Amino acid sequence: MKITILGGGGFLGRKIAARLAAEATLGGRTVTGLTLFDMLPPPAPAAPFPVSCVGGDVVDLPAAAIPADTDVVFQLAAVVSAQAEADYDLGRRVNLRGTDAVIDACRKLAKPPRVVFTSSVASFSGGQGAWLPDDARQVPANSYGAQKAAAELILADASRRGFIDAVSIRLPTVVVRPGRPNRAASGFFSGIIREPLLGLETELPVPDDFAVWICSPRRATDWLLHAGAMDGAPLGLDRSLTPPGLSVTVGEMLAALDQVKPGASALVRRVEDKTIAEIVGGWPSGFAPVRAPALGFAQHESLVELVRAFVADDLAATRAERGLV
Amino acid sequence: MKITILGGGGFLGRKIAARLAAEATLGGRTVTGLTLFDMLPPPAPAAPFPVSCVGGDVVDLPAAAIPADTDVVFQLAAVVSAQAEADYDLGRRVNLRGTDAVIDACRKLAKPPRVVFTSSVASFSGGQGAWLPDDARQVPANSYGAQKAAAELILADASRRGFIDAVSIRLPTVVVRPGRPNRAASGFFSGIIREPLLGLETELPVPDDFAVWICSPRRATDWLLHAGAMDGAPLGLDRSLTPPGLSVTVGEMLAALDQVKPGASALVRRVEDKTIAEIVGGWPSGFAPVRAPALGFAQHESLVELVRAFVADDLAATRAERGLV
Repeated sequence: MKITILGGGGFLGRKIAARLAAEATLGGRTVTGLTLFDMLPPPAPAAPFPVSCVGGDVVDLPAAAIPADTDVVFQLAAVVSAQAEADYDLGRRVNLRGTDAVIDACRKLAKPPRVVFTSSVASFSGGQGAWLPDDARQVPANSYGAQKAAAELILADASRRGFIDAVSIRLPTVVVRPGRPNRAASGFFSGIIREPLLGLETELPVPDDFAVWICSPRRATDWLLHAGAMDGAPLGLDRSLTPPGLSVTVGEMLAALDQVKPGASALVRRVEDKTIAEIVGGWPSGFAPVRAPALGFAQHESLVELVRAFVADDLAATRAERGLV
Repeated sequence: MKITILGGGGFLGRKIAARLAAEATLGGRTVTGLTLFDMLPPPAPAAPFPVSCVGGDVVDLPAAAIPADTDVVFQLAAVVSAQAEADYDLGRRVNLRGTDAVIDACRKLAKPPRVVFTSSVASFSGGQGAWLPDDARQVPANSYGAQKAAAELILADASRRGFIDAVSIRLPTVVVRPGRPNRAASGFFSGIIREPLLGLETELPVPDDFAVWICSPRRATDWLLHAGAMDGAPLGLDRSLTPPGLSVTVGEMLAALDQVKPGASALVRRVEDKTIAEIVGGWPSGFAPVRAPALGFAQHESLVELVRAFVADDLAATRAERGLV
C-alpha cells in the first residue's frame, strides 16, 4: 500500500508519518511506500519502507507528490484560520485551488485513491450553547471555514464521479499543540496547558466557563488513520464526518492540568481579549456525532489522559525546540 | 442605479433585462444604466436608460462587464446541470472559477455591490417525499448542485468580508421554459405543458404522481429583482434563501394544462425513462421556506396561472422561434 501525506511537514502530518513508520500497516495492509509533500521537503522518519520527500506548491503539484500507484492520500496541506483571514487570496488559492489540484492529480492515477481531507469545526458557527447534530448546515463565520466547507462539497462530488474516494474529517480544535505559541485565535486553548507545564506564564482571554470542542493530537491521528482505511461505501453521497471530540470548559481543562501537575494553573493569568473571544465565541461549543462512532471512529479519552499524552509525547521535544532547560 | 446582468443573454437574464427596461426602477431607485454580459454580446432591450452589451468569458471578465459604479450584479452565468455533469472541467471552471472572478471584479468597485446569485434546488438531495426546511444541509447528487452550493459558501464569505453584498436564491425547476425542448433531465417538466400548447406530442418519463418543486419564469424574475433591492442586513452570515416555489405532481400539472386548453394533455405519451427518473428523482420534492416569505419574497401563483402566464408571455415567441404556424 502506497501512501502520500500532503502537508507532511506539519504538526499532524508528522504524527501520521511517525505512526505509519512505526506500525508499517494501515487497515491491515502492509505499507510499501510513503511520500511526504510540503512547501519544503519534510524530514523522513526512519521506516521499514521507502520514504520519499518532495517539496513544492500544492496548487501546482509535482507528479512525484502522488505517484501513479498511490492508494491513500492524506490531504492536510492548508492555509490555517488566522492566515486565511489575513490573506484572502492566499487562503482561497491553497484551500480551494489546492483541493482542485489534488483531485486533478488523483484523476490521473491507476485507480481512484482514498483521499482523507482535514476539514474543521471552523466550518460551523452557532457559538456558546450550540450543540450541533451530524446533519447541521455549515454556516461558516471565517474564510478558512468557508473554504473547508466548499472543499468538502467538491471532494464529495469528485467521489460521486469516481475520481477519488474521499472522507472528510471535521477536526475539533486540536489541544495540546506542541512547540511555540502561535497567533491563531484558538492558540490559547493549547497555551493554557502547554505553557504552565513548561513553567511559563500564559494568558487566558475568555472566562473559565467558556466551552470548546477539542481533540487530542493522538485522537486526531487515530481518526485520520481510520479514515484512510475504512470502508467508504456506507458514506453514500455525504463524505463528511464529525468525529467524537470532547466539549469541555476552560475551567475543566485547568482542573485536568492541576491533576497532572498540581498548582500549574496558577501560571494562567486572566486577561480578557474581546477580539479573540469574538472569533472563538462563534464556533459551536459541541457536537452530537452519531455517524462517526457508528463507523468505528474512536471515542475520545478523558481530559486528564489528554494532558498526560502531551507530557508523554511532546513535552520534551517542545522544551528542546524552545531552548528551555 | 447601475445594474449588470451576467448571463444576460439567457432565458432568465433576458426576462430580468426586459422588466428593468419596462419599469426603469429597482427597489424604488431609478435605473440609470444596464450592462448585459454573456459569451456573445446579448441583444439590448429598448430602455429609457443606456444599455451596453458585452461579450466574453466570465472567468476572464472584461472590465466593461461590471463598470466601476455598478450597484447591483445579477450573476446568472453558469454551465447548467446536464452540461456540468457531462463536462466536469467546464462546469468547475465556469461555476466555481466564475464565482471567484465575479468576486474579484466586485472588489475593485467603488463600493461593494449587491450580487444576486442563482443557486438551485439541485444543490439538495433527498428525493420523493423529502420536504426540506430552510436550514437543511446541502448534499448534492450532481456536479452542478455541488458547484452551486460551494459558490454560495464563497459568496457568503466574500459578503462577510465586505467585498460584496450577496443574496443567493435557490431557484426551483423553472416551468414553463420557452423555446425548443432541451436535453436537460428536467426539460420534460416544461415540455409536457409547452409542447401540447403548440399542438405537438411529447414524452413523460416519470409516473403521474411524481412530485417536483417548481416556479414560473414570472415568479423567478420577481424573486431575483426583489433580491436585487432588499435589505441584506437581516440575512446575517447566511446569504442563501429558498424562495416559496410550488410542490406539484405531474398529474396536477397536466390537469392545469387541460384547464387552460381542454384535451391538450392527450398529446402527452407515457414513456418510462429510468435514467431521467433517477436524476430528477434525487431532487427533494418540496421545501418549507419560512425565511424568504418573511423577507418579502412573493408567494407563488397557482398552476393554472402559471400555464396562462406561459401562453401570455412566451407562446407566440416560441411558436415563431420554432417556425410553427
